[in-house]
Amino acid sequence: MQLKLKISLLICLFGAAFFCSAQQHPNLILTKKGVELIRNSKATAPLFVEVLEVTKAEVDAEIEAGIFVPVPKDMAGGYTHERHKKNFFILQKAGNLYQITGDEKYAVYIRDMFLEYATLFPKLGLHPTMRSYATGKIFWQCLNDANWLVYSSQAYDAVYDFLTKKERKNLEKNLFRPLADFISVDNPKFYNRIHNHSTWGNAAVGMIGLVMNDEELIQRALYGLKDDGLDDTMLDNDGGFIKVEGQNQAGFLAQLDYSFSPDGYFTEGPYYLRYAMTPFLLFAKSLHNNRPDLKIYDYRDGILKKAVFSLLAQTDANGLFFPLNDSQKGMSWNAREVIAAVDIAYADFGNDPELLSIAVKQNKVLLDGSGFLVARDIAAGKTKKLVQKSVVYRDGAEGEKGGVAILRENNVDGGEICAVVKYSAHGMGHGHFDKLSYSLYDDMGEVIQDYGAARWVNIDQKGGGRYLKENKTFAKQSIAHNTLVINEESHYGGSVKKGEANSPDLYFVDIEDKDCQILSAKEQHAYDGTEMHRTLILLQDENFRNPLFLDIFRVKTDKENQYDLPLWFMGHLLSTDFDYEAKTTELKTLGTDHGYQHLWKEAAGKPANESLQMTWFGNSRFYTQTAAAQKDDELIFARGGANDPEYNLRHDPVFIQRRKAKSTVFFNVIESHGRYNPVSEIPLSPFSGIEKAEILQDTDAYTVTRLTHNSGKIWTVAIANNNADKMAKHEVKIGDQIIKWTGVYHLSKK
Amino acid sequence: MQLKLKISLLICLFGAAFFCSAQQHPNLILTKKGVELIRNSKATAPLFVEVLEVTKAEVDAEIEAGIFVPVPKDMAGGYTHERHKKNFFILQKAGNLYQITGDEKYAVYIRDMFLEYATLFPKLGLHPTMRSYATGKIFWQCLNDANWLVYSSQAYDAVYDFLTKKERKNLEKNLFRPLADFISVDNPKFYNRIHNHSTWGNAAVGMIGLVMNDEELIQRALYGLKDDGLDDTMLDNDGGFIKVEGQNQAGFLAQLDYSFSPDGYFTEGPYYLRYAMTPFLLFAKSLHNNRPDLKIYDYRDGILKKAVFSLLAQTDANGLFFPLNDSQKGMSWNAREVIAAVDIAYADFGNDPELLSIAVKQNKVLLDGSGFLVARDIAAGKTKKLVQKSVVYRDGAEGEKGGVAILRENNVDGGEICAVVKYSAHGMGHGHFDKLSYSLYDDMGEVIQDYGAARWVNIDQKGGGRYLKENKTFAKQSIAHNTLVINEESHYGGSVKKGEANSPDLYFVDIEDKDCQILSAKEQHAYDGTEMHRTLILLQDENFRNPLFLDIFRVKTDKENQYDLPLWFMGHLLSTDFDYEAKTTELKTLGTDHGYQHLWKEAAGKPANESLQMTWFGNSRFYTQTAAAQKDDELIFARGGANDPEYNLRHDPVFIQRRKAKSTVFFNVIESHGRYNPVSEIPLSPFSGIEKAEILQDTDAYTVTRLTHNSGKIWTVAIANNNADKMAKHEVKIGDQIIKWTGVYHLSKK
Repeated sequence: MQLKLKISLLICLFGAAFFCSAQQHPNLILTKKGVELIRNSKATAPLFVEVLEVTKAEVDAEIEAGIFVPVPKDMAGGYTHERHKKNFFILQKAGNLYQITGDEKYAVYIRDMFLEYATLFPKLGLHPTMRSYATGKIFWQCLNDANWLVYSSQAYDAVYDFLTKKERKNLEKNLFRPLADFISVDNPKFYNRIHNHSTWGNAAVGMIGLVMNDEELIQRALYGLKDDGLDDTMLDNDGGFIKVEGQNQAGFLAQLDYSFSPDGYFTEGPYYLRYAMTPFLLFAKSLHNNRPDLKIYDYRDGILKKAVFSLLAQTDANGLFFPLNDSQKGMSWNAREVIAAVDIAYADFGNDPELLSIAVKQNKVLLDGSGFLVARDIAAGKTKKLVQKSVVYRDGAEGEKGGVAILRENNVDGGEICAVVKYSAHGMGHGHFDKLSYSLYDDMGEVIQDYGAARWVNIDQKGGGRYLKENKTFAKQSIAHNTLVINEESHYGGSVKKGEANSPDLYFVDIEDKDCQILSAKEQHAYDGTEMHRTLILLQDENFRNPLFLDIFRVKTDKENQYDLPLWFMGHLLSTDFDYEAKTTELKTLGTDHGYQHLWKEAAGKPANESLQMTWFGNSRFYTQTAAAQKDDELIFARGGANDPEYNLRHDPVFIQRRKAKSTVFFNVIESHGRYNPVSEIPLSPFSGIEKAEILQDTDAYTVTRLTHNSGKIWTVAIANNNADKMAKHEVKIGDQIIKWTGVYHLSKK
Repeated sequence: MQLKLKISLLICLFGAAFFCSAQQHPNLILTKKGVELIRNSKATAPLFVEVLEVTKAEVDAEIEAGIFVPVPKDMAGGYTHERHKKNFFILQKAGNLYQITGDEKYAVYIRDMFLEYATLFPKLGLHPTMRSYATGKIFWQCLNDANWLVYSSQAYDAVYDFLTKKERKNLEKNLFRPLADFISVDNPKFYNRIHNHSTWGNAAVGMIGLVMNDEELIQRALYGLKDDGLDDTMLDNDGGFIKVEGQNQAGFLAQLDYSFSPDGYFTEGPYYLRYAMTPFLLFAKSLHNNRPDLKIYDYRDGILKKAVFSLLAQTDANGLFFPLNDSQKGMSWNAREVIAAVDIAYADFGNDPELLSIAVKQNKVLLDGSGFLVARDIAAGKTKKLVQKSVVYRDGAEGEKGGVAILRENNVDGGEICAVVKYSAHGMGHGHFDKLSYSLYDDMGEVIQDYGAARWVNIDQKGGGRYLKENKTFAKQSIAHNTLVINEESHYGGSVKKGEANSPDLYFVDIEDKDCQILSAKEQHAYDGTEMHRTLILLQDENFRNPLFLDIFRVKTDKENQYDLPLWFMGHLLSTDFDYEAKTTELKTLGTDHGYQHLWKEAAGKPANESLQMTWFGNSRFYTQTAAAQKDDELIFARGGANDPEYNLRHDPVFIQRRKAKSTVFFNVIESHGRYNPVSEIPLSPFSGIEKAEILQDTDAYTVTRLTHNSGKIWTVAIANNNADKMAKHEVKIGDQIIKWTGVYHLSKK
């Protein structure tokens, strides 16, 4: 794919004279054609007009208040940081307003502010905070300087023709070019990586390069720095490696090659994909407008389109992103970046009418040609309801590093049950030690949660808004996730290096049968000499109000271990069918390391039978876990918040099934069976419909589990553990009954 | 007021022959006139038609499913309980449908179900659960039997003319009359009390009496049982006294006399007022329709109207009731009972158009004449926006037992800051030991919370849905509220008897000046030889984004005591300006009794200065408490959930300012100063605008406090502690400055 591109580039370079002489402004994101369209048919797009009015009011108020370009001093959340951040957003908006309304006051405002920056910038040394692996000048980190340039390029493009040649020369010489050099050649650690930070850097350099028609900057943006002098051991602030071993390409095209899997999955997860989408799409759109021969939208079989759709797919029923890896919860498709992604994807990737339904929920559009199209087509009644489907994404640039699956099925309340299964690569500096973990959602939100990151983004009181130390000591650790932890030690021993070198393997998956969506994956390297094998099933059956979620977690080893299977249930414990002893007057931590030091041990008990149940209440719903148990299992209730003197963590509950054994298997079922609201005070189906969960057989070759309904109905699941051949024939004997099947698994009901 | 009523009653009795012969059906809640109006002008009331269709679908499905009248067996939440409960709701709805649609299938269904009840009822002994102070027959408690009869009376009224005389005789002889006798003469403890339970009993007996035209039942409903044989020491299930000393009247009119203060405040609080409103309004409306000479709506200067409006006033910006005393949180004006109250109040108490705005939010109306009027007038555009005003309610039948004040002021986000100050009587069996406590709300909900009750209403897994033992050991205790606790002992030593015998006194109040709403109350009896005096101010000032809440809590005594002032802040601690030592690996309880045994002590510190600050984040908002401090104060962070082996309690955080002293004063300020949302990730005003809070002087005569803004601006509050005369002149010397004022308090700013 690289070759084709390079040829395009050559053509482009030869044709540069043509492009240069013909270059018009604006043509970066907002284009002359877009401006004309907007001016002529505004009335057909009421949502666009609304945004236009709101933006006008906002920018007019800023113009009224005056220009503030303070000497940089503060961390995120502090005055100078927030002011410069506001400036670049307002600059970009003012640019669009100038083009759309033709009112010169906006151009004057931009010019005057840029001139102040051009005066200030040459005097700036590094930002005084010096707390980043790549300290910026305007902000505490280069990343924010790059943000500034991505937005300011658009403003510059908008007023390019308004400015005098002399003004442009001043700005380019004293501000834009030196800033572009600063965040690239002066900061290779920041600029020359495969990382969302670098993508911002590449886009910033490339976009200002396009406006200035500075071919050197454009090349640097596309292909990175040639000699960056970086080695493989350098770390960023989040503990991620700067360089990936054996990967030496950089620049925007390399980001497209290495940031995404062939399916458009982004290894850091959707929270960062959302953040990265802005430079990806803005620079790509700028290239699309200015270097059409590059065919950037077709690059890697349309990887950008795939990425946008994978971003939108990684949301719950309310549009909140799944908090995989380092993610602040609450981020949703209402975010500025997703509004941009939806509008650009609609305009440039085939006018998918389901995107309009997201835009309707966002109730905002971009103030440019894409946003105009979206608003116009919503008004024209083209919106189609968004239907989120089950989907399986491969991870790794070649699709070779496991993946993430999202299994969805409708529930009785008109919403859905959605399981997010993570058997992906480590996720670089933002990765968590959560191999084979899952989280579960319904239309009310989280049912079984992933903790997300220990960070309060931009909130100064919490470590200046950066990642907190508990992010490493707790949020990244395996016990903070819904996956197996052996001997109280995180996967890969908590080593990022080991984590990045390995990943789980998909064993098999079938999401075609909506009534039985099944996924099975194996992890061989998280613990030496140990295979972890998890099979997860979303099962729809008329005997249950909602789809059930079945979890069969097998571990194979020669060693005697302690296994902990945590369930981060969201809500308040209602009841258990086993006795436990609660610590009523004194609490101690559950352990001393790998995240265990952050858990208070509240209670522990033993199963009363060979199957156990616990019921909780959350989100106005009743949920029950039914699990197969062994008589010596220890059943633990714990809660976050220990060893947390600065109150950085949430105090969420967790239920842990602990077992000491060699090879063993855990089998449990999550059931959403009823609801209650405090206004009617009428509980609907507050009790589980399941009688028991059992393991009928577990050998190296086969695992057979059984689920019994209160009515006596039985579901049996048999899995061939070491043969993924769809045509292979299997047979197991359970008591005097023989189960025969073809393929990897078998589900029977009677 | 009793005399006038009795004369009306005599007139009514003399006129009984007339009423009897002229008696028509339906005339209880739904009337013949109402039915005609509805039938003729349905089209003008679309919301009513919607409710009609939904109700039809619901009742038709029940008719389709068949009649189920099981032998009573289960507690609340169990099958037989929920089935009988459903039956009475469906019966009432079917009755209205029969009248409105004229379709006889509804009458047939009612008749057949009633006949089954008439067969079952004579065979029933007491309900087998035997867990109530007044066990029922159809349900586990008489209360639910009374609910059944209140609704079934309406169904009987609706089909009265449809039934044969023989059928009516059967039903009255085998079902209605014996049930009415059972819940009254057979259960004086239930029936002959001043309590919401008895109000249901009175209404049930009275309403069936009106339909049957049974004057004996009507008299019994209005005046209670003559000789009930009850003594003053009996308790109900909730620990409340059955009889109040010296109060011997009973029946519906006595409920009206003693349940409400002259302002319509209900001593048990809004959660129970909501519940009690149904029998109050339904029976009152039945009397209004059938015994107009009683002028029941004019009784006690229109006490029922006052009660409805006080109910609606005791809600936060989202219509949720303040959880005073025993209340399950989440109850709101969307409750069935409040829909009924709003509709009846609109129809019968003067067509207040603000009520329509609540009905619009409820999006439901009663399926009768009142509901029709509401729906019609909404469609006619008569709705006016509800504006909740600050209000002060007296408590006690004569208004002599303190009260509850609700102070409201707009905030910058288009919502409000609302303080609920409780200096009321104990609240009978549902009362809490929370003298001079407050809770604080904004448009997002709770800011400083009242715990509410430790109960999961109707949720079988939690003690059958009844009050949990932690309700007594924690939720009722003083430390669970935002008020002063002395020597780790609850107010009145936790004695209901002492609590009922005493109440705080209003010292002064002024809510006329919207910018400075102030209330001051004293409590003399909660601790022997100790006066507690709290002054609370809602202060609007241009220097702050939102109104501030000032709290000056003075305690006067000769003894050396330990004082704890808890702040039940809702949210996550962000920062403090003082150091504290956190318990990182081991937690112990804060105390051993009076609720302290349910708190984990998480951290403790000392103030760094003479003023302290703590900032928390909740509801997407930043809040800061600034408090005057003494150097030996202990500053404690604790959390609920200790000694709670069944997970009955929420694990909420609390901040406690602890001081050892004789007479002393606490002064603190709550400031809502900023906001943040996880989508934009931009914090707005995350830091407090206050520099410090100080006490300048505290003598028996005067308390003077000062608040300093970061800008240097100063607010001084001076209070005369022992002279509530509005014309009295005062003078205090602070350093070399003299403050002079007239009246109880003085607020100055400079």
